[in-house]
Amino acid sequence: MRVSVIGLGKAGLPLATVIADSGIHVTGIDIDMKRCDLINLGTNPINEEPKLQELIKKHGGKTLFATSKYEDAKDCGVFIVIVPLFLDENNNADLSVLRSVFNNIAGILKKGDIVVLETSVPPMTTETVVRNWLEERSKMKLGEFYLANSPERIMTGFSISRLREFPKVIGGVDEESGRKAYDIYKLFIPNLHLVSSAKVAEYIKVIEGCYRDSNIALANELFKISNELGINFFEAREWANHKYCDIHVPSTGAGGHCIPLYPWFLIKEMEKRDGNLNAKLLRTSREINDEMIEFWVKKIIQEGKKLKKPFPKVKICVKGITFRKGVKELYRSRNLALVRLLSDKRADVFVYDELFTKKEVQKLGLKWGKPEDADISFDPFNLILSVS
Amino acid sequence: MRVSVIGLGKAGLPLATVIADSGIHVTGIDIDMKRCDLINLGTNPINEEPKLQELIKKHGGKTLFATSKYEDAKDCGVFIVIVPLFLDENNNADLSVLRSVFNNIAGILKKGDIVVLETSVPPMTTETVVRNWLEERSKMKLGEFYLANSPERIMTGFSISRLREFPKVIGGVDEESGRKAYDIYKLFIPNLHLVSSAKVAEYIKVIEGCYRDSNIALANELFKISNELGINFFEAREWANHKYCDIHVPSTGAGGHCIPLYPWFLIKEMEKRDGNLNAKLLRTSREINDEMIEFWVKKIIQEGKKLKKPFPKVKICVKGITFRKGVKELYRSRNLALVRLLSDKRADVFVYDELFTKKEVQKLGLKWGKPEDADISFDPFNLILSVS
Repeated sequence: MRVSVIGLGKAGLPLATVIADSGIHVTGIDIDMKRCDLINLGTNPINEEPKLQELIKKHGGKTLFATSKYEDAKDCGVFIVIVPLFLDENNNADLSVLRSVFNNIAGILKKGDIVVLETSVPPMTTETVVRNWLEERSKMKLGEFYLANSPERIMTGFSISRLREFPKVIGGVDEESGRKAYDIYKLFIPNLHLVSSAKVAEYIKVIEGCYRDSNIALANELFKISNELGINFFEAREWANHKYCDIHVPSTGAGGHCIPLYPWFLIKEMEKRDGNLNAKLLRTSREINDEMIEFWVKKIIQEGKKLKKPFPKVKICVKGITFRKGVKELYRSRNLALVRLLSDKRADVFVYDELFTKKEVQKLGLKWGKPEDADISFDPFNLILSVS
Repeated sequence: MRVSVIGLGKAGLPLATVIADSGIHVTGIDIDMKRCDLINLGTNPINEEPKLQELIKKHGGKTLFATSKYEDAKDCGVFIVIVPLFLDENNNADLSVLRSVFNNIAGILKKGDIVVLETSVPPMTTETVVRNWLEERSKMKLGEFYLANSPERIMTGFSISRLREFPKVIGGVDEESGRKAYDIYKLFIPNLHLVSSAKVAEYIKVIEGCYRDSNIALANELFKISNELGINFFEAREWANHKYCDIHVPSTGAGGHCIPLYPWFLIKEMEKRDGNLNAKLLRTSREINDEMIEFWVKKIIQEGKKLKKPFPKVKICVKGITFRKGVKELYRSRNLALVRLLSDKRADVFVYDELFTKKEVQKLGLKWGKPEDADISFDPFNLILSVS
């Protein structure tokens, strides 16, 4: 048996290598040909994932073969899709990448093949949209092929240990699909659980993200209230938290490919239905997290106005633009949004981020500079605002 | 040294006995003279607190003396206030009980005495309102007496172990008050931490309650969404939860003396201030939890309409009216509110609750009946709706 993994990014590549490491031949597919070449040469293209290096060196170009052509995967019996998903400007899931991937798979799908979606999607996507795409294009019916969902639970920097230790769920569009997909996955995922359907598997991942988003929003709201009351939030949090209480850390908001997307899956689904269940906690949480940059910009401007300079001449350095510390990723980064908001307020703001060169920063249309040249610097990861 | 504990209820009595058990003489004050008599006879008046029995038998009427007269406590050097607090109809904290207690204490307060408030209050109550009451009435200034806050962290049924194991914080209105109160408390609370101020101590308790309320609201919202999508919430929750994810259990809302009150402390404080920080997550969480009974009433009525009877003739039994299972307490009970809402909808609803006699149920203006006589019964603690 050969397994194809479609998408060799931060989530897909660790999965592909873990499958290869279990002794199964893997055909990895990615549109980025350069990345495929690197992998086939045994080189890890993901800097943030140090544990990956060893596995790629061992299997890259051997049991793990990377390619940009779907044809190369036509002898595979299992297709695992793990590509990124974005939201459109109205916060609806943009399924265009997935559609193209599943159309390509359908073109080479054979009787008895198993297809598993790992990308986090709105609940019911697998059993409705994905099934339709596969059936229409392959001219086969479910039962001739099998379809399941097993949401990735990757966290950049910890992906290999997540795959080897963290609980992972899998659920089929029908019972047979669930059982067949489970039997395959069990070969390379030790902590695997078969759930009753694909939509339960999808929902599990989504509500985990909603928990994170709402709890980040709660921490942010309580942080703003402490600030108003002159209370040191971190002191209070230290003693409020215990076995049954887990107040999160405040931040500049929630960014990246996961947390800010999942609440929208449910908000939008509830919007479509003609009920009065409008997911108001999820909505409010999203608002609070998105508004946090306004709180910080106000704070920074307040500090700036204390200096003996007209405000537009106050030099402000923001020490980080990625959505998370140490991960070179800007999708929905609130720290990048914070820099842009300061610019909009006519502040003289520049950026220093260890993960980006001066040129890369300038390419984003931002000024680059060193913290030591600033009057005020703000570290968005540790929420430290310092005046020089 | 003698310690006075004012309030011998579900929170105060366990504390008083734990202090007595550490070898310190305690004068307990409670307005309920019958309760005082029971305690002095060595009888535990709180059924839900079985571990208390042994301590009361050992110390009641001996090192723990209960009385209704403040005069009896005039030789005490430490006064600990642990009385209930309610919200008024506008959800503002009603401080009238506290005012009366502190006026009484001020009447017998001596130089060098230490006063500690344990009742959970809106942040800054101790340093402003309570301090003023004591200074005005005692004609002494802070520094002549000492004032601190150490919020109780009791949970009915586990109060003794909470006092002996759970982390507890204490903070002074000024530094000296904090240190002095800490030194006393350390004699009977093993896991004690001195925090930087009384308001930090108050805030710690309040945000812990906010965490609970918002997470119950999140569970309730996600539960309603699963219901809409035809997903078994409990299956999804089982696999969504792990070390970093703690989705709570859904319910009929949050009742009792603690969780539904604390968010209001912060919401109301933010309302007073002329900012745009309106604590919207805390507000939304309160709304969701209070609205849960509407969801359940709708569910019950839907089930009722499936039966071959006109709806007003469908017999409905609600199996529990207390705010929490096993605790005979109706304050802000959403289960009681659920029964009343069903009545308002002209349902033939009756109540069965192991903790209440038929007469007690009828005194509340409710019908009493047995589940076996119902067409539909609803267990609000386990969310089980069954049709006979």
